[in-house]
Order: sequence, then C-alpha cells, then structure tokens
Amino acid sequence: MERLDPKFDANGLVTAVVTDVTSGELLMVAHMNAEALDLTRTTGEAHFWSRSRSELWRKGATSGNTLKVAEMRIDCDQDAIWLKVVPAGPACHTGADSCFFRKIASDGALSEG
Amino acid sequence: MERLDPKFDANGLVTAVVTDVTSGELLMVAHMNAEALDLTRTTGEAHFWSRSRSELWRKGATSGNTLKVAEMRIDCDQDAIWLKVVPAGPACHTGADSCFFRKIASDGALSEG
Repeated sequence: MERLDPKFDANGLVTAVVTDVTSGELLMVAHMNAEALDLTRTTGEAHFWSRSRSELWRKGATSGNTLKVAEMRIDCDQDAIWLKVVPAGPACHTGADSCFFRKIASDGALSEG
Repeated sequence: MERLDPKFDANGLVTAVVTDVTSGELLMVAHMNAEALDLTRTTGEAHFWSRSRSELWRKGATSGNTLKVAEMRIDCDQDAIWLKVVPAGPACHTGADSCFFRKIASDGALSEG
C-alpha cells in the first residue's frame, strides 16, 4: 500500500491548493508544514502554516470561515496537496468567495469578475 | 487601472496553479519567475521555472503536451497565479491527465482514482 510521504521544501512546507468541492472554483493557495498536514488529515478541517505570521493556523479560527475537507489528493512528486472543501463562508480575507477575484489581461491590467 | 505587481518569494518565484478550462480539474502546480510569467502572459502558452533543473521551461517543449492559456487570474496578495488552460495532452510527466491522480485517506494511505 502506497503511503503519504510529503516532500517538504527547505522551509518545511508543501503547497496546498483549495477548491470548492461543489463549484470546483479555486478558492485559495496556502502552505502546510507537517503538523498542518497531519491536523488537516486527522480532523477534516483545513490547517495551514502562515508564512507571514510564522504560526500554525486553523483556517477560520478567528473569522469563522472554516473549510471542511471533503477530499485530499497529492501530486506525482508529493510536494503539493489538493483540498476539495466545503467552505463555511468567504475563503478570502478580503470577503471575496475566492482569493482569485482578479483576471490578468495580456497587457498586465487587472480587472475584477 | 490596477496593474499586475507580483510578489515574488525569496527565490524570485510565485506559485502557479493550472486547471483545465473545460473540466475544471486541477492539472498541476508549478512555479514561475518574472520571465516565465511575462512569457505566459504575452505568448498565451504556459511557461514555468523548473526548480529541479533551474531553468525556464515552456511546458510541452519536449513532450508536446503544451498548455494553451484561456485565462489568467491572480490572488489577493499577488503571490499565486491561476491558469485556466486547454491542454494538448496529459499534463503530468507520468502520463496521467492530472498530477493529482492519488487520493489521501485519513490514515495516510494513497489510492488512485
């Protein structure tokens, strides 16, 4: 039986990609250390490592906008995790449903929607 | 007009998340330096920075499995890019359509499908 064997980077992190299990929308990209990954796997609630605050972070601990994990997947070289989640509210700290609320035009202009 | 102003990390990279514009499936996660991002934006073909080979990489240059960019989006803090693409073939070097072909069970076992 193949087992989870994450390849953490020099900072001890893997990339976590979060999509809405219902809409398929990309909600956010974050990072996980070994503890965040273990807690996410065992509790079914998304946990991350905050690079800016240098602390373990249960998503929604302060905002209430938790992410319930419906499915976890891992990529070919085991350095990226895909979480399909049921969000309890807007995933982005700006209040948007997704952090990816801006489109990039070919000239580099950004636009919402 | 708001402009693209990517926040590259200490290695000069942002994270790139690639989904299939038709199925919505997460295909792969990779990294871009400023040049890869510029080339992707201006040519409409996905370019990345290979961390293992330390070189700029036009996806599909050797395999033929290029990624035509239908839409580019950026996240709230401008350190992650979302590419919605039309893949010319399997996105994963293993031959799988997606690099995320394995599910993680809560006990850490991996399974395909």
